[in-house]
Amino acid sequence: MRAEIITIGDELLIGQVVDTNSAWMAERLNEQGIELYQITSVHDSKPHIIAALDEAFSRVDIVLTTGGLGPTADDITKHVLCEYFATRLVEDPAVHAHILQLYAHRPDVLNRLTATQWLVPETAKILPNRVGSAPLMIFHRGQQILASMPGVPYEMKIAMEEQVLPYINNFNFQTLNLKSQIIHRTLQVNDIPESSLAILLEEYEEAMPSGLHLAYLPKDGIIRLRLSSYGELSEEQMNLWFNRLKELVHEYMIADTDEPLEVIVGRLLRERGATIATAESCTGGKLAALLNKHAGSSSFYFGSIVSYDNSVKTRLLSVPEEMIAEHGVVSEPVVRRMAESACRQLGTDFAIATSGVAGPGGGSDEKPVGTVWIAWTTPGSTTAQCFQLGKLREQITDRACQKALVQMIRILQS
Amino acid sequence: MRAEIITIGDELLIGQVVDTNSAWMAERLNEQGIELYQITSVHDSKPHIIAALDEAFSRVDIVLTTGGLGPTADDITKHVLCEYFATRLVEDPAVHAHILQLYAHRPDVLNRLTATQWLVPETAKILPNRVGSAPLMIFHRGQQILASMPGVPYEMKIAMEEQVLPYINNFNFQTLNLKSQIIHRTLQVNDIPESSLAILLEEYEEAMPSGLHLAYLPKDGIIRLRLSSYGELSEEQMNLWFNRLKELVHEYMIADTDEPLEVIVGRLLRERGATIATAESCTGGKLAALLNKHAGSSSFYFGSIVSYDNSVKTRLLSVPEEMIAEHGVVSEPVVRRMAESACRQLGTDFAIATSGVAGPGGGSDEKPVGTVWIAWTTPGSTTAQCFQLGKLREQITDRACQKALVQMIRILQS
Repeated sequence: MRAEIITIGDELLIGQVVDTNSAWMAERLNEQGIELYQITSVHDSKPHIIAALDEAFSRVDIVLTTGGLGPTADDITKHVLCEYFATRLVEDPAVHAHILQLYAHRPDVLNRLTATQWLVPETAKILPNRVGSAPLMIFHRGQQILASMPGVPYEMKIAMEEQVLPYINNFNFQTLNLKSQIIHRTLQVNDIPESSLAILLEEYEEAMPSGLHLAYLPKDGIIRLRLSSYGELSEEQMNLWFNRLKELVHEYMIADTDEPLEVIVGRLLRERGATIATAESCTGGKLAALLNKHAGSSSFYFGSIVSYDNSVKTRLLSVPEEMIAEHGVVSEPVVRRMAESACRQLGTDFAIATSGVAGPGGGSDEKPVGTVWIAWTTPGSTTAQCFQLGKLREQITDRACQKALVQMIRILQS
Repeated sequence: MRAEIITIGDELLIGQVVDTNSAWMAERLNEQGIELYQITSVHDSKPHIIAALDEAFSRVDIVLTTGGLGPTADDITKHVLCEYFATRLVEDPAVHAHILQLYAHRPDVLNRLTATQWLVPETAKILPNRVGSAPLMIFHRGQQILASMPGVPYEMKIAMEEQVLPYINNFNFQTLNLKSQIIHRTLQVNDIPESSLAILLEEYEEAMPSGLHLAYLPKDGIIRLRLSSYGELSEEQMNLWFNRLKELVHEYMIADTDEPLEVIVGRLLRERGATIATAESCTGGKLAALLNKHAGSSSFYFGSIVSYDNSVKTRLLSVPEEMIAEHGVVSEPVVRRMAESACRQLGTDFAIATSGVAGPGGGSDEKPVGTVWIAWTTPGSTTAQCFQLGKLREQITDRACQKALVQMIRILQS
């Protein structure tokens, strides 16, 4: 069972919007044992959408489209689908009632353009869109199926989870019964070049059976290694091969899951009932935002003092002005003091502090753009390390957060 | 002149990586007057890549590929391109020398897999990759052109800006001379439903000439209105139509550019030489990270006290425990006190504070998940407002940042 995604919207093709939907949808499809074959982004254009539909239906069983379902003139997906499936728009009383209820407190929205939202293709199966006005539409075409969803990420996510995926699974089960088990296993390693890792795993890769695939996903020094089987290996066989892989990379491994680093830190802190705070200069709140990104963070994450301006380091983190004058603000003594003060001021067991030159300005020969000092305070001690993290502002701050979290994981695992 | 992007990598199709490259590339191409027709994401598979190349070359003049250029066995793009363009791999002395220099301080990387990186297709034009080991390859096919770049975002960005775009522009100029002027103009409005806006603009849209396109891009309450012309209208005509549009939406407009909200806030603060701080509970550092995301933020952004845990609100933001006990932590008095304390403690002219229920836990009948209080302190006064921002954690915190910035823009514009 294979699927494709077609994302519809000029905004994707002029770079006004980053397509975060597809990766999320890809993950859900894979979890369900549905292989995603291709993602295609097309314009709000009838011939373009129709060409993409034709091509997708020539390759796969399930086509998922997002976008182009708003009430305004630039949104044409519903009309194009009507034409493609040779049907016409009719009023849907259930959608009508839902929209009246949705906007009961906002009568200004109930105008004649919104009224076009309860017109739906006659032959489509309409699923309820709990959080928006655009109808979720399913079209059947022999043994093939198309689902059309809104492009707004949170509407799409609720539509997929509550309506579209259950519908597709039921359809598969009843009509095709072809569902194969897709299994992915991922681990993360650090401190080894990709090519050296590949040489280390050469014998392992040669011995792998033909249905097993190994992928290297490097990002900023961390490499994720992913084993995949598309219906050919059993869970047991996968475990066997994954365990062998873990043994081989053991000394470089930081996690045997695909969890984000901040989730691993959170899990390790919760396991020991410990708390953490941050004091951030160059990362400017990014590390804090990562640590509380996921539900449940309030049990281990207390807060951060983002001391972007030096006066804040002095006022709130007790960094003496003389220390800054003597060593510079991007220095070991300053970052150590920041971490220790954060621990004390916020009353936590652990703390991380960052101070660096994120650029593009502020670099010097001695401390060029990309120089970042990071310190980690634990109940017993404080350690600090200096990194060179590249040349671009976003890359430097992302990598600083990553280095901060990797070392925190090592500390919590030791 | 039209282009397509083909992103190559299994990781995109199992959702392990969000494709941020394409939007960035799309923006650069549009700036250069090159229309991006389609984006296609394919597997690391020879037949799949070849099919995608054939299809793209049947539609456009320029094909840009990213990914699949690493030294490991799962990366096959270079080999597939060799076969597609009927050439063979040969050693490139310049690439060889560059890689030796790149890893001069890391001899462990210079193993035999890395050595495959200086093998390049014989007929390809090789452009220097300043920051990585994968060669940048250009293939010509009659009047058509293909550029292959790494998928690692910062490597791709440097490759595009320094090498590929200048090469393509030169190629266009010399061989085709077809470059048409693509013009986009975007403004942002707030506090009006999309359908009401469309009705307000109905006469305007009917009067628009055929070469002019208007798109509505709603996101979390803000709607960006984009006027586009693909080579049909002059700069002057576009200005005329854009000015008319601005007049029509004047009372809802928050910006007549496509700049992110935090950039607008930064610009307005710099214009008056003022500074800002934040005190964040539910947004947990996200607002701080936004405000210092862009270069130059140190001139107006001082820092943040991220008080995720209540003890931090009491200790660092002088919120009395009795106030929390009486009104709850998500309340007007608490968020006002947070903003005022942030202003005073960090010594800034303005401050923003947030306190809300980001969920999934912590909601009550009175204050359900999604309830967020925001306060703005100015040199003269403090105002506060309560919002209901949805049900999903990420959506709630994103929207809270957005509401905080929109109101700050209004304050700074008044």
